[in-house]
Amino acid sequence: MPEKMILQDKIIEIVKGVYEKFGFTPLQTPALEYAETLLGKYGEESNALIYQFRDYGGRKVGLRFDLTIPLARVMAMYSELSRPFKRYQLAPVWRAENPQKGRFREFFQFDSDIVGVSSMMADAEIVNLIYETMKALGFNRFIIQINNRKILDSLAFKVGISKNQLPTVFRILDKLEKTGIEEAEKALLEKRFSKEVVKELLEFIQIKGNNQEILSRLKNLLFDNLKGIKGIEELESILAYSKEISIPEDNLKINLAIIRGLDYYTGPVFETLISDLPEVGSVFGGGRYDNLIGMFFEKEIPAVGVSIGIDRIFSAMDTLKMFPVETAITQVLVTVFDKAAQILSFKTANELRKLGINSEVYLGEDDLSKQFNYADKKKIPLVIIIGPDEVKKNVITIKDLRSGEQKNIKGDNLITILKMIK
Amino acid sequence: MPEKMILQDKIIEIVKGVYEKFGFTPLQTPALEYAETLLGKYGEESNALIYQFRDYGGRKVGLRFDLTIPLARVMAMYSELSRPFKRYQLAPVWRAENPQKGRFREFFQFDSDIVGVSSMMADAEIVNLIYETMKALGFNRFIIQINNRKILDSLAFKVGISKNQLPTVFRILDKLEKTGIEEAEKALLEKRFSKEVVKELLEFIQIKGNNQEILSRLKNLLFDNLKGIKGIEELESILAYSKEISIPEDNLKINLAIIRGLDYYTGPVFETLISDLPEVGSVFGGGRYDNLIGMFFEKEIPAVGVSIGIDRIFSAMDTLKMFPVETAITQVLVTVFDKAAQILSFKTANELRKLGINSEVYLGEDDLSKQFNYADKKKIPLVIIIGPDEVKKNVITIKDLRSGEQKNIKGDNLITILKMIK
Repeated sequence: MPEKMILQDKIIEIVKGVYEKFGFTPLQTPALEYAETLLGKYGEESNALIYQFRDYGGRKVGLRFDLTIPLARVMAMYSELSRPFKRYQLAPVWRAENPQKGRFREFFQFDSDIVGVSSMMADAEIVNLIYETMKALGFNRFIIQINNRKILDSLAFKVGISKNQLPTVFRILDKLEKTGIEEAEKALLEKRFSKEVVKELLEFIQIKGNNQEILSRLKNLLFDNLKGIKGIEELESILAYSKEISIPEDNLKINLAIIRGLDYYTGPVFETLISDLPEVGSVFGGGRYDNLIGMFFEKEIPAVGVSIGIDRIFSAMDTLKMFPVETAITQVLVTVFDKAAQILSFKTANELRKLGINSEVYLGEDDLSKQFNYADKKKIPLVIIIGPDEVKKNVITIKDLRSGEQKNIKGDNLITILKMIK
Repeated sequence: MPEKMILQDKIIEIVKGVYEKFGFTPLQTPALEYAETLLGKYGEESNALIYQFRDYGGRKVGLRFDLTIPLARVMAMYSELSRPFKRYQLAPVWRAENPQKGRFREFFQFDSDIVGVSSMMADAEIVNLIYETMKALGFNRFIIQINNRKILDSLAFKVGISKNQLPTVFRILDKLEKTGIEEAEKALLEKRFSKEVVKELLEFIQIKGNNQEILSRLKNLLFDNLKGIKGIEELESILAYSKEISIPEDNLKINLAIIRGLDYYTGPVFETLISDLPEVGSVFGGGRYDNLIGMFFEKEIPAVGVSIGIDRIFSAMDTLKMFPVETAITQVLVTVFDKAAQILSFKTANELRKLGINSEVYLGEDDLSKQFNYADKKKIPLVIIIGPDEVKKNVITIKDLRSGEQKNIKGDNLITILKMIK
């Protein structure tokens, strides 16, 4: 509906503004991809979520279910794209799920990714991007939670979990924040991990403290694990960059319980919580995925990216009353009286537009009270009345619906209306 | 691709700006609609153009093929929407055709409609909207061509064509501009209309002259036809409004050969030609359709709307070289040298962003020549060089890739860079 769309468009405009400030460029891909492109990339499980059909040429096609696969396909098809390639994309995606609260069959995804860079500068840039976007949207109390899949792998290895069990374990742990620690414990025990393994693993991912404390605990735990050490170095590197550009430690915290559901992450992973509304869930999630794009190439292409949840941001801003009270696009409604006065209404609206004021003529043939109703419903703040009296005297009457104030102004002095706006 | 997207986004921004100046509000609808909503609304012919399938709940769904049916569905579902309802919508639509030059299976449609108004003020407002949008995009030499289905119906009736033959006749005439008069004549004769009927009909729709001349010819021809008289009055009314708000007659002309393919138009119809590029085709087309929305209601709801062809506008602006030469989103690239200097690069880019300058740090670990290549390819105008020398002396070197000019500035005097941009 328009009232929501107006606010949503404002959010999107702010986010795009920040992304462009970082030099991300827009990309657009079709909603329909060949089924063969979409299938099997995230494992069989996700295939059931794809809307598939045959086009009239008999080819199997499907509706995209994310924006990462199309990005990978584009990177492979257009080798002339200069790398590092930084793009953002805002577009609908489809999942063949049963709709439920907060889950839709069709929803917008808004991704930004950096392709072709293995340096942690890229990951730090993504953290920076999240930080600046949240600030630009008006949030101050939020936490970018950061973890690293290399560290998670090593911790799991340390307690005796084998590589092929990792996806199962991570999928259970990913739900921990929602279901609580007992449920995760139960689910892991059901998968026949021993009590000791489960206890130790859950202890590890619940290590608390400030970033320095967590890092030194990790260094003690993983001193003999090369992958673990690499993961710690990656975190340290991101934290160092973030410190240099003055991201407060309150806004960027290591949390070893951040997993991210998808199997494809290979390094840093991020989630972002709004401190006053943790129940909204993560509003900005992503991470590094160095193997996925390579599936479309001969060689591996590193990548890191993040997805902003516009719906969640919207609902948080709504709950925290961060939206301006007025949401009307139209600033002035010009009423119409009869055929003779009508042309003057038309001209007046047009003159106002030339002054940069969003203006409507009332287009129906209803009486004045209905016209005021219309302004009221659409939350239009100013109404101009032009009737036969006004035409005769070359004045117009203007009423401010917010204050009730009403005054007459000369018909050729429309510029005074500018002052009444806001 | 980003280079095209950047320009396309600029076009869209301008168009949205004008639409909002007229008080149109945004609306968003899902791509998937129930098949039953989509089918049979424009006649069986269009049904073959719909991508249909069953969702996992067994319901028949389809991808929308226009934005008018979804608008009608929304109007019927949400009776609380205040009428007159003015909305714009920019969204992809799908048609199950074989792709060919200029015809795609998936493309963006950008519609604006006024629902619930039968007065010609609404149609005049649409003409005004087209005019202001074309001007805002930078076009001066264009013609909004206007006609009226009521007049066409009456002219056809006058030469002896019956009501049920009208759709066939109009579909043939609609292709006249592309195929030429001989082809249209041949096609009509093939449909078994007599030579006399075809000759007279083609003469009528080719009546030339200025608007006044055409109107008086029509008045003579249709003086005894109520529907025809109504159509003439509608045209006169739109022209009167347009004159009042000073739309030049060069930009708004009656053309009786404007038909519009779809069956559902009931009154004024519009097409817009760019005078220097008629071969691009109509860039703004639409008209009044007073019966379509009623299909979803108990009673009839009048409506008038227009669709802008963003792809055609893009190609015209491209051919006429109306785009700015620079299309980069990034204004400054900050190069990186080594680990030590890198942090300074990172900080510098961040400071620039705070000044409102779109800035990137080069995120790879390549030598300087590769970094310059990157700026070149992305058309980034300014490059900042930060190496060990610069770090030591707290200066940065800035090079303008357009002029080749290079200078050193104090590291804390970034504001000077603002002056180099534009």
